[in-house]
Amino acid sequence: MRNIKNIAILGSTGSIGTQTLDVISEYSDRLYPYLLTANHNSELLISQALKYKPRKVVIADVSHFVAVREALAGTGIEVVAGADAIAESVADTEIDIVVTALVGYSGLAPTIRAINAGKKIALANKETLVVAGELITGMLKDSVSELIPVDSEHSAIFQCLVGEDVESVEKLILTASGGPFRTMSVAEMSKVTKADALNHPNWKMGAKVTVDSASMMNKGFEMIEARWLFNIVPDRIEIVVHPQSIVHSMVEFSDGSIKAQLGLPDMRLPIRYALNYPERLQSKAERLTVDRYSSLTFEKPDMQKFPLLGMAFDAIRAGGNVPCALNAANEIAVAAFLSDKIRFVDMPVVVGKAVARNSFVANPSYDDLIATNKDIREITLSLIK
Amino acid sequence: MRNIKNIAILGSTGSIGTQTLDVISEYSDRLYPYLLTANHNSELLISQALKYKPRKVVIADVSHFVAVREALAGTGIEVVAGADAIAESVADTEIDIVVTALVGYSGLAPTIRAINAGKKIALANKETLVVAGELITGMLKDSVSELIPVDSEHSAIFQCLVGEDVESVEKLILTASGGPFRTMSVAEMSKVTKADALNHPNWKMGAKVTVDSASMMNKGFEMIEARWLFNIVPDRIEIVVHPQSIVHSMVEFSDGSIKAQLGLPDMRLPIRYALNYPERLQSKAERLTVDRYSSLTFEKPDMQKFPLLGMAFDAIRAGGNVPCALNAANEIAVAAFLSDKIRFVDMPVVVGKAVARNSFVANPSYDDLIATNKDIREITLSLIK
Repeated sequence: MRNIKNIAILGSTGSIGTQTLDVISEYSDRLYPYLLTANHNSELLISQALKYKPRKVVIADVSHFVAVREALAGTGIEVVAGADAIAESVADTEIDIVVTALVGYSGLAPTIRAINAGKKIALANKETLVVAGELITGMLKDSVSELIPVDSEHSAIFQCLVGEDVESVEKLILTASGGPFRTMSVAEMSKVTKADALNHPNWKMGAKVTVDSASMMNKGFEMIEARWLFNIVPDRIEIVVHPQSIVHSMVEFSDGSIKAQLGLPDMRLPIRYALNYPERLQSKAERLTVDRYSSLTFEKPDMQKFPLLGMAFDAIRAGGNVPCALNAANEIAVAAFLSDKIRFVDMPVVVGKAVARNSFVANPSYDDLIATNKDIREITLSLIK
Repeated sequence: MRNIKNIAILGSTGSIGTQTLDVISEYSDRLYPYLLTANHNSELLISQALKYKPRKVVIADVSHFVAVREALAGTGIEVVAGADAIAESVADTEIDIVVTALVGYSGLAPTIRAINAGKKIALANKETLVVAGELITGMLKDSVSELIPVDSEHSAIFQCLVGEDVESVEKLILTASGGPFRTMSVAEMSKVTKADALNHPNWKMGAKVTVDSASMMNKGFEMIEARWLFNIVPDRIEIVVHPQSIVHSMVEFSDGSIKAQLGLPDMRLPIRYALNYPERLQSKAERLTVDRYSSLTFEKPDMQKFPLLGMAFDAIRAGGNVPCALNAANEIAVAAFLSDKIRFVDMPVVVGKAVARNSFVANPSYDDLIATNKDIREITLSLIK
C-alpha cells in the first residue's frame, strides 16, 4: 500500500477546493492532489496546477481547453476538457479519496461515479444527498465506498459519533449561524441587497451557499443531508441558531448526554479531518482559545422569517422527488436573486410555487430525478419571468 | 454470565450513594445493589436496605451494629460492622462493579482492595487518585480492573475520548462553575460564612466537596485526578470557569478540534453512564433543552482569589507525596472551617504552611502515603490551634 493518498478535488477553484489544497500542502508527505477539476476558472486552475503539480486536470468548459493545455505544456500534467470528463476521471484506480466540492446539482453525477468506483468520498456537495439521498444511501449499502462529510455541521456530528452506537442516538442538533438577517424584521428583509446577503458574519464561502445561509435554505439542506448521512428521521433533527459558529453541531444520546464539537469557523478543520480520517493529525492551525468562546448563545430559529427552512422539513417528510424539486427551484431562485431579477424575500415565494407544481414520484430513479430537476428549473424560470 | 450486574456502593448514604441507588432502581432489570456500606448513618442505611434489599450491608461505626442488625432481622440481609469490613467486602466474587462514593482519604484502602480483586470501579472518590495516583495507575497496569470516572468532569472527558486515539489529545479543558464566590472580591471573601460556602449555585453535593468547590480546591483535585486517569501532563490541563455548569468538560485534539460533553447538572447522568458503560441506556431523565443552554459563558479562573487551585498545580508538578500532603492538610482545614474554627480565607494559608512542612518522598509506597497523611493531619491541626 502506498503511504501517500491520492486526492481528486472536483471543483478545485472554489472555496472548498482551494482550502482542500491548503490542507493537502500541510500534509504533503501523506496527501497528493492527483486530480484537479474546474468549471471555467481556467486561470486559477492553471496556477494551481503549476503550484501543486497534479497528475491530471479537467476543465469542464471546453472553450478554455486550449489555454489550459498551452499553459501546462511541458509539465507532464494531463489536460482534458468537458463536463463528462469530470465524472469519468474519478474512476481512475490511482485515486484514493474524491473530494466533491462542486456547487449544486452538478455534484450528483460525479458522486455516483465515485460510489460505483468504490472510492472514499469527502462529501462537500450537500445537494447530492438533498436531491438523491435515498438513491445514494441505497447504492452505498452495496458498495465499499464510504461518505465522510466535509460540511462543518456534519463533520461535527460524525466526530461526536465516533466510538458511539448509532442506535443510542436520540437527536441530532444542527447549529445554524442564523446568517446576516437573523435580527432583522420581515419588513427590513424585504429591502436587503445582494451585497447584504453575501456578507456572512462568520464563514467565508461561495456565493450560492452564502445566499442559502442567509435564507436558512442551507440549514434545511443540511437537515436533509443529515437525515441520509446518519439515517435519522427528520423529527429527530433539531435546528438551533448559534450566531457565534463555534459549536458546529451536537448529538443527544438516549441517556440524556449531549456531545458537541467545537472549533474556529474554518473549513480547513473538517477538510483535514475528512482527508485523514480515522486519524487526527497534528496541525499548526490556530486554536480555539477561551477568549474566542467566552460567550456562546443558542436560540430556536424563527420559522416565520425563514420559510425555506420549513419547506425543507416539508420536503423531506413528503419524500420521493420533492427534495430534488426543492433544490432545483432554489438553485434557479438564488441565481435570479444574484442577477437582481427577484428580491431576497421573493425566493421562498417562487420556490414554494414551483415545488407545488412538482409531479410527485414516490421512489424516483436517477432518470426520474434528472427529469424532476429539469422540469422544476423550467417551471421556476417561467414563474420568475 | 449473569444478566444482572451486582453493584457494591461504598458510601451508599452520601449524595453520590443515594443517587446511585436512584439509577440502579431505574434499571432494576440489569443492576442490583448487592452491597451497601455506610459510615455511621445507620438510620438511612436501614431504610435503604429495607427498600432495595441488598445481599449485605456494612456499617463502619461498630456502635451502630446492633441497631442495624435488629432492624434487618428476618430480611436475610447480612449485616457486618467495622471500617475494615468495607475494604474486605469489595473482594466478594459476586460483585461486578464497585462504586467508591466514600468521602476523602477513606476511599483509598477500599479502592486498592477493589483493584486487587480485579473489579470494575466506578470512581466517585477523587482523593484516591489525588493521594495515590502514581501507585494506583501502576497497580491498574497489572490488573484486569478498570476505572470508570463518575465525577461529571471526568465522565465528560471519558465520553469525549470514546473512539478517539488518546495519542491525539492535545489538551483537557476542565470546566469549573467557579462556585458561590466567583464574583466576590478577596475582601468580601474574608467575611463569608459556612452557610455561604455550602450554597453551591448549580450542584447538590456533600458538605466537604461543596466547600472544596467554593475554594476551587475541588477543581485542583480534579486536575490531579485527570492527570492520572488520562495520563496527561498537568501543563496540558486547562481550567476554564463556566458558571452555568452545562458543559461538563472538553477535550482538544491535535488537529485543533474540540469535543465537549453537555448535560443538566445532575450526577445521575455520569453515574448512569459509568454503571452501564460501554452501553448508553434509554433514560427518562429530564433533557437539556435549548432554553437551558441559551447562554453559556467561559472565562479564565482568578488564580489570586483561589490560591488552593495554584497549590494543586504546584503539588502535582512536585509529585511524590506532595499531593497526598495537600489533600491531608485540606481535609483538616475544611473540617476546621465547617466547625467554625477558621475562616474561609484561612484555609489556603493553613494548607500552604502545612504542605511546606511536608517531608518529600519521591516515590511513595502505600505505607509512605499513610505516614504522610498522618503527619500532615497532625501538623495542620497544630497550625490551627
